[in-house]
Amino acid sequence: MTTQSSIDEFLERLASGNPTPGGGSAAAIMGAMGAALVSMVCNVSIGKKGYEAVEAEMRAVLAQSETLRLRLAAMVSEDVAAFDSLLAAYKLPKVSDSEKARRADAIQAGLRRATEVPLDCARVCADVIRLSRRASEHGYRGVISDGGVGVLAAYAAARSAALNVFINAPALKDQQFAQASIAELEKLLEFCAVECESVYALVRKKLEA
Amino acid sequence: MTTQSSIDEFLERLASGNPTPGGGSAAAIMGAMGAALVSMVCNVSIGKKGYEAVEAEMRAVLAQSETLRLRLAAMVSEDVAAFDSLLAAYKLPKVSDSEKARRADAIQAGLRRATEVPLDCARVCADVIRLSRRASEHGYRGVISDGGVGVLAAYAAARSAALNVFINAPALKDQQFAQASIAELEKLLEFCAVECESVYALVRKKLEA
Repeated sequence: MTTQSSIDEFLERLASGNPTPGGGSAAAIMGAMGAALVSMVCNVSIGKKGYEAVEAEMRAVLAQSETLRLRLAAMVSEDVAAFDSLLAAYKLPKVSDSEKARRADAIQAGLRRATEVPLDCARVCADVIRLSRRASEHGYRGVISDGGVGVLAAYAAARSAALNVFINAPALKDQQFAQASIAELEKLLEFCAVECESVYALVRKKLEA
Repeated sequence: MTTQSSIDEFLERLASGNPTPGGGSAAAIMGAMGAALVSMVCNVSIGKKGYEAVEAEMRAVLAQSETLRLRLAAMVSEDVAAFDSLLAAYKLPKVSDSEKARRADAIQAGLRRATEVPLDCARVCADVIRLSRRASEHGYRGVISDGGVGVLAAYAAARSAALNVFINAPALKDQQFAQASIAELEKLLEFCAVECESVYALVRKKLEA
């Protein structure tokens, strides 16, 4: 499953009873859509009459949002790979003691990856939310609703990625890493919640003006 | 722009300075992902040992979530078509009085469609949220995080679709329709906000148990 698949094919496979792609991949795509909409606001604003004063800012935001968009799109297959390797680990033989030990190690490695990928997704989505504020504050008013959809998509993506950390981290033997991941995530989510509602309110206000 | 395009191509075009696809199409895809994840929870739960008692309920939810998924996927191109026809209306000649009148009518027809499509998207997303509760309450515990991502995606989609109504409805001459649309939407969003947080809390609780 890669982002070269069609949207229809992705949705079909997401809906199926196969474990991948699942919520982690959906989160990465939502985040990538958020970044793409920030880019859209910048692209429309660059060269727009009356927006000359913010052009440098829009170019700076665009360079970052495009990097984040490609990073998030790449996470779709990273998430599938992490989850597939975890499932493969659970299916390893567990008869002899050495098999049991090898299986336990493989499960731990899989769980760690299945924690790291969504944690990283949440971090990047927080950055998308930061950029969405700059795009919505300074970008062309005619596409302000697109900036608003961008922040909503990035926030839903961050919360979705977090659910994947919450489901995987508790089973990690390395509880120091697990607890550090969860603590970082809780902080990220607090920031994202406040910032998303603040950007959303800014967009609503501009729509009403 | 249809859902037969690859995810990469969609993201590329979303990020571009072209007006379509924009936030409306992104909203429809998020909604479709929400419905797909509800379907996933049902598909995994059907036939699962220990979940025999909820199989009929999972089948009933699945039939509905699959209908909504296809409906939302179809809205991606409906949104593009509505917005393209609005943009085409603005570009009509406006020299003679009859041209002006024809242009004004075309703009109003375009605005109406660009209000109806996202309003309908928000309605369908509210239904996805309703189904996500049933899937998360009764579905297989191992995919509960996917049910959580489903409700988050559907809620972000509903709020995103609403932004498109808020940007288009005020310019409608038919203010009775415009105000009725906005009033319906505000009620829908209130329901979605409460219900999304309630389902999310249910999912978090099951993850911790």
